[in-house]
Amino acid sequence: MSERPLIIDCLQYCNFSHGIFRQMAEGGVSAVHVTIAYHELFRETVSNISRWNRWFEQFPDLICPAGSGDDVRNAHERGRTAIIYGLQNPSPIEDDIGLVEILHTLGVRFMQLTYNNQSLLATGCYETEDTGLTRMGHEVVREMNRVGMVVDMSHSAERSTLEAIEHSHRPIAITHANPHAWHPALRNKSGDVLRALSQSGGMLGFSLYPHHLNNGSECTLGDFCQMIARTADLMGVDHIGLGTDLCQDQPDSVVEWMRTGRWSKSIDYGEGSSNDAGFPAQPDWFRDNRDFANLQLGLLEAGFSDAETAQIMGGNWLRFFDESFGPA
Amino acid sequence: MSERPLIIDCLQYCNFSHGIFRQMAEGGVSAVHVTIAYHELFRETVSNISRWNRWFEQFPDLICPAGSGDDVRNAHERGRTAIIYGLQNPSPIEDDIGLVEILHTLGVRFMQLTYNNQSLLATGCYETEDTGLTRMGHEVVREMNRVGMVVDMSHSAERSTLEAIEHSHRPIAITHANPHAWHPALRNKSGDVLRALSQSGGMLGFSLYPHHLNNGSECTLGDFCQMIARTADLMGVDHIGLGTDLCQDQPDSVVEWMRTGRWSKSIDYGEGSSNDAGFPAQPDWFRDNRDFANLQLGLLEAGFSDAETAQIMGGNWLRFFDESFGPA
Repeated sequence: MSERPLIIDCLQYCNFSHGIFRQMAEGGVSAVHVTIAYHELFRETVSNISRWNRWFEQFPDLICPAGSGDDVRNAHERGRTAIIYGLQNPSPIEDDIGLVEILHTLGVRFMQLTYNNQSLLATGCYETEDTGLTRMGHEVVREMNRVGMVVDMSHSAERSTLEAIEHSHRPIAITHANPHAWHPALRNKSGDVLRALSQSGGMLGFSLYPHHLNNGSECTLGDFCQMIARTADLMGVDHIGLGTDLCQDQPDSVVEWMRTGRWSKSIDYGEGSSNDAGFPAQPDWFRDNRDFANLQLGLLEAGFSDAETAQIMGGNWLRFFDESFGPA
Repeated sequence: MSERPLIIDCLQYCNFSHGIFRQMAEGGVSAVHVTIAYHELFRETVSNISRWNRWFEQFPDLICPAGSGDDVRNAHERGRTAIIYGLQNPSPIEDDIGLVEILHTLGVRFMQLTYNNQSLLATGCYETEDTGLTRMGHEVVREMNRVGMVVDMSHSAERSTLEAIEHSHRPIAITHANPHAWHPALRNKSGDVLRALSQSGGMLGFSLYPHHLNNGSECTLGDFCQMIARTADLMGVDHIGLGTDLCQDQPDSVVEWMRTGRWSKSIDYGEGSSNDAGFPAQPDWFRDNRDFANLQLGLLEAGFSDAETAQIMGGNWLRFFDESFGPA
């Protein structure tokens, strides 16, 4: 690979700053899908978009907004990092299907139908009962298909995920999760889900959030890349990419916000525990946006060809963006 | 004029419907600047945009959204009416300058700094004291200049209007008003304002709202077009167009909403009176969107050339859109 590789990270929720944008440039990151809402309603989400608008004005040499594959190519050629918005919860659309198109116009390209809990649309992975897509869920998936907003089931329960794959007329994504068979976290995905995902043309982004990793923060690069190789055997090398779930520079209050939002007065420890309530430490081979080269080397060492490595590092997501972000 | 003329109406607040969209097609209207908010805050304005999104989905053969002069040209060539959003009050940006860019992204291209009353930005034409642009007003005008949202002073007081013309780095508009010398309504504009407007490259749209007309609903087409001819002498023929203020099919409850919003528990009669509280009747030569041909004939009879008539009917606004709707 003589020219600069195209790197796409399909999920980050960093405490973004000039420093992190510089690290993205140093790491050669061409595009990042950034979470702009966890539990926010519409108006709060718009304020988060406003904050990004100010960053785009302040740091035009580092970052730019992106709503299409071509925007990502353009950023890559100009040495910028393209920023793509996503929602980890449908709370920003409130009870209003019209807000799907409004948020798409404002640049949102991914929306999770649930974040751990039951939503108006589907069931989250932490509920005991999974009732699948709701009435509104069916309508909203169709509307997302129409405008070009990707259904993301990273935090959804099994039946809901399979129903979303089946009901959606366009391929969906699981932007940040790993196979349950490798590490049995509640958030990681079954073979059934991964097979149905790839057969429908969907994409899986591999997570580097330690709670999703075998041996957590001690997970080795070799183990991680072998897992990717086995997943490629299951799903095909065309349907996998990265979605690191990097939460750099966030205070521990933010992981509490992610888990508990405003839906409970008690603390929910999510994937952590009362003894391990904060953000876990990153593996030393993937600390931040400067370490994507380690992943690239790991993939080559795991036996992927140059072309396959380029697909996993960004090429597959770019193709998926081309197919997914415009009107149906 | 052998080919179909380009007609732009730079202000309507109709009770829009399939029937009105068909009348626009029948009248050959290429673009309409539609008011999407009088007193609404941000979230309510977004719901109004959602309603337009549904109409664009339902009636794609009649209307399409427009954010640039080229969008208008494209609509004109395809026989559609291009819809451009505007706000008659800055209430949709609430107290948040970031909402200027958000609303521009959602398609808003005009914003009045005031609607009759004092706003956070400037003074309306019905206040007794006019203190000019406020601190926030200066900031918001600069931000509107940056993103390409036109400052509209149709309902603003004299000093505020002159200060907006001077402070704005880009030409502003008075989308719907007539000269005060022709009909001394409080909303009509002084010679000083009209001269400063044209000297700065701005545009005036002539209103057909009867309270802005000499003899009201009985105003003749000849009188109206003679007024346009005198205004062309004052401002130059490059700086005038149409902004009919057509409020077709609205119930009288809507004129009360326009005048009183939620700012008073009493009724404010605005340009009407307790004996004449509702919408006035339109002149019989301009009842609705099918009657633009009458204006065209009236302009030719008032002595305008074919080319000048085409400028006033739409060409001037199109040039102004080209210059105004993009980033600075």
